[in-house]
Amino acid sequence: MAETEQSVPIGMVAARLHRAAQIDCLARLNEAGYTDLRMRHLALLEGMPREGGRVTTLATQTGMTKQAMGELIDEIEASGYIERQSDPADRRARLIVFTPKGQRAYEQAFVILGEMEHDYATTVGAARYSEARLTLDDLVTALEENNR
Amino acid sequence: MAETEQSVPIGMVAARLHRAAQIDCLARLNEAGYTDLRMRHLALLEGMPREGGRVTTLATQTGMTKQAMGELIDEIEASGYIERQSDPADRRARLIVFTPKGQRAYEQAFVILGEMEHDYATTVGAARYSEARLTLDDLVTALEENNR
Repeated sequence: MAETEQSVPIGMVAARLHRAAQIDCLARLNEAGYTDLRMRHLALLEGMPREGGRVTTLATQTGMTKQAMGELIDEIEASGYIERQSDPADRRARLIVFTPKGQRAYEQAFVILGEMEHDYATTVGAARYSEARLTLDDLVTALEENNR
Repeated sequence: MAETEQSVPIGMVAARLHRAAQIDCLARLNEAGYTDLRMRHLALLEGMPREGGRVTTLATQTGMTKQAMGELIDEIEASGYIERQSDPADRRARLIVFTPKGQRAYEQAFVILGEMEHDYATTVGAARYSEARLTLDDLVTALEENNR
């Protein structure tokens, strides 16, 4: 749904904020030397647990088809951030885990995300930022409960 | 980046809110009779201007590859919501426009998004909701300006 001047749906504001934060995070990762990461890689990487995850779980999280997710994994694997492993708990399942390079990028991203939080609070004012976060948390929690 | 208890990055909160609003919107569209719409279709449809848009523009907006976007367009076209046209302004470019069925769904979605705004304001309180929206608008505007 395209935006109108009078009332932009909250979902679209959220999508823009998500995207703007991704662009910001990627620019900071590029500056830190991770120049081969792309915006589309973040769809997978931002949802990756530190210990890795199953392909099917990661595909479900992103809403991508299994094929599209497979192509994305190929690309990030080629850049050396992740690798496929067989799941010791289920031989038919495939795990995606971070390589050492991926782990370093993950730790760097963690530091960067902390800096972003600080900068965003400064941008709109710490009290307003904190209030808005509380309100969003309440809304997201209620919606996710309803959507179950 | 997976979430931690102590401090969830704002980008992840935004992503969850975007997704929860999509699920909510889709459930309401399904209830209204549009039962063949899927979550992944919204990646394209929510960014579609009423008058349609160029494939390349829509692909850039979503961050998808041209191939992945082509497959998504095929799928939504098969459900009868959109169709490809040649762009009168540029013969090499392809436009995606709504079919009459797509236009009806678009109008319905517009009504639904208004109902969602009302419901969300009720969920967290009208004043808090309005405050949070203002703060988010300020933050998104500043970030998009910085990211240019």
